[in-house]
Amino acid sequence: MNSHTGASRYNIHALQMQCRLGDVSANLAHLAAGAQRAASRGAQLLLAPELCVTGYGAEDALRQTTEDDTRNQLRALQAVADQHRMALVVGMAERHGAALYNCAALVRPASPPALYRKTCLFGDYERSLFTPAPPSTCVFEHAGLRIGLLVCFDVEFPENVRRLAQAGAQLIAVPTALPAGRYSPFVAQQLVPVRAFENQVFVAYADHVGKDGRFAYAGLSCIAAPDGTRLAFADAHTPADLSATLVPADYADSAAHNSYLSELDHMADAGHRL
Amino acid sequence: MNSHTGASRYNIHALQMQCRLGDVSANLAHLAAGAQRAASRGAQLLLAPELCVTGYGAEDALRQTTEDDTRNQLRALQAVADQHRMALVVGMAERHGAALYNCAALVRPASPPALYRKTCLFGDYERSLFTPAPPSTCVFEHAGLRIGLLVCFDVEFPENVRRLAQAGAQLIAVPTALPAGRYSPFVAQQLVPVRAFENQVFVAYADHVGKDGRFAYAGLSCIAAPDGTRLAFADAHTPADLSATLVPADYADSAAHNSYLSELDHMADAGHRL
Repeated sequence: MNSHTGASRYNIHALQMQCRLGDVSANLAHLAAGAQRAASRGAQLLLAPELCVTGYGAEDALRQTTEDDTRNQLRALQAVADQHRMALVVGMAERHGAALYNCAALVRPASPPALYRKTCLFGDYERSLFTPAPPSTCVFEHAGLRIGLLVCFDVEFPENVRRLAQAGAQLIAVPTALPAGRYSPFVAQQLVPVRAFENQVFVAYADHVGKDGRFAYAGLSCIAAPDGTRLAFADAHTPADLSATLVPADYADSAAHNSYLSELDHMADAGHRL
Repeated sequence: MNSHTGASRYNIHALQMQCRLGDVSANLAHLAAGAQRAASRGAQLLLAPELCVTGYGAEDALRQTTEDDTRNQLRALQAVADQHRMALVVGMAERHGAALYNCAALVRPASPPALYRKTCLFGDYERSLFTPAPPSTCVFEHAGLRIGLLVCFDVEFPENVRRLAQAGAQLIAVPTALPAGRYSPFVAQQLVPVRAFENQVFVAYADHVGKDGRFAYAGLSCIAAPDGTRLAFADAHTPADLSATLVPADYADSAAHNSYLSELDHMADAGHRL
């Protein structure tokens, strides 16, 4: 519905990263270097994995995060965004009083940062560290594209993606920390593209890779299009830069043939809410 | 949660059919022959495509369906179910006063038939013929397995499958009429297995194949397991019999690792409803 008024092309760059556990300076430098490469390719958005500022497995560093740490990390990311005139979506912890949230930070040039707090915490490790947030609908416009935010396990629940798509998101940006394991290829390669298709949105999914001393990661980062094709994807083993140009108008046929959101509107008009 | 009390093994047989348009006798004979083959393989359930009693494209025959027609068709299916001591899930029209519903009929030996009425009508053809039904939660037990019913386009909406899974369905049986087209392989091969995975249920999806004079069909029927694997699948071109033995206990590991339904319960306990 917005191909006329919104971005005609939007360049996105996703980092499949290997973090240094608890070494915030090294990880921020890694992100800054990734932003430099992304800028050289004309990216308007850089996406990085869940909790990549500290490392996902950095239990102690995460637990000890202070409000000052959160502010300082956001300030460092803001400097990168301002320098390259680029938006960043980066996984990081947010301290807020006694609560610690697992967040996707959206940092844009000359705008205050936005923090989406993860609802669907995964496993005992996350539940021991983080406060689960109520479901929220974080959708922000950047360079004419409406970007919705989720973190990792959130995207495996169709309800979360639907909520953002119904709020107008065209791209769902998902920092993730998908562990290596038997079911992970299905999640990354089948489920993530289906989330794109069933809502006719783009989904970008940036994972860690390798081991961090505590966990091993699946890699398999991808950028999926509204028709379910994968515009870019990484393997299971190697740090990687993924680039894609999102052209919403290229999916007008898919949106017309797979019009799930407008079908839901029609049903609601008939008094039927699924 | 029910692997102890329910069926340890359940045999299902799905027909990928080429119907004769408007020739109810021929299609019922075709179903009876399929049930005979299914019985010889020990099937407890036969699944057949959407509106296969008349043919999906049988516009006039569908429009002229009377309440007597509906009763007679159900009686014929009941005779097949009784003869083979087998449940049938068959797509057919139901006349109810002025309303005509696009249904999945569940017919079991020595039980009254149950009719699930499709909510998510697809395209102008269906909307011109049928009354859309409010969403309903049709879950029935047969031989220790809890079977939920949907029709075709319904399964493409995650909300519908979620609702049945949360009501305890272990198998979602879906008569379908997926048209041949650019997006159909994605629906049959990617989206349907993801519906199984994201709810940790079996999904059986029986399609038409070939042309009926009005439409061309995608085939690609399948039976998907809770871990997203396909236990049986057909090609895009040929009538086929699909058989699978559903063993819920084989997916205990998948259910433990991909515990979406219990996660939703935990979140609800914390006051968070997605």
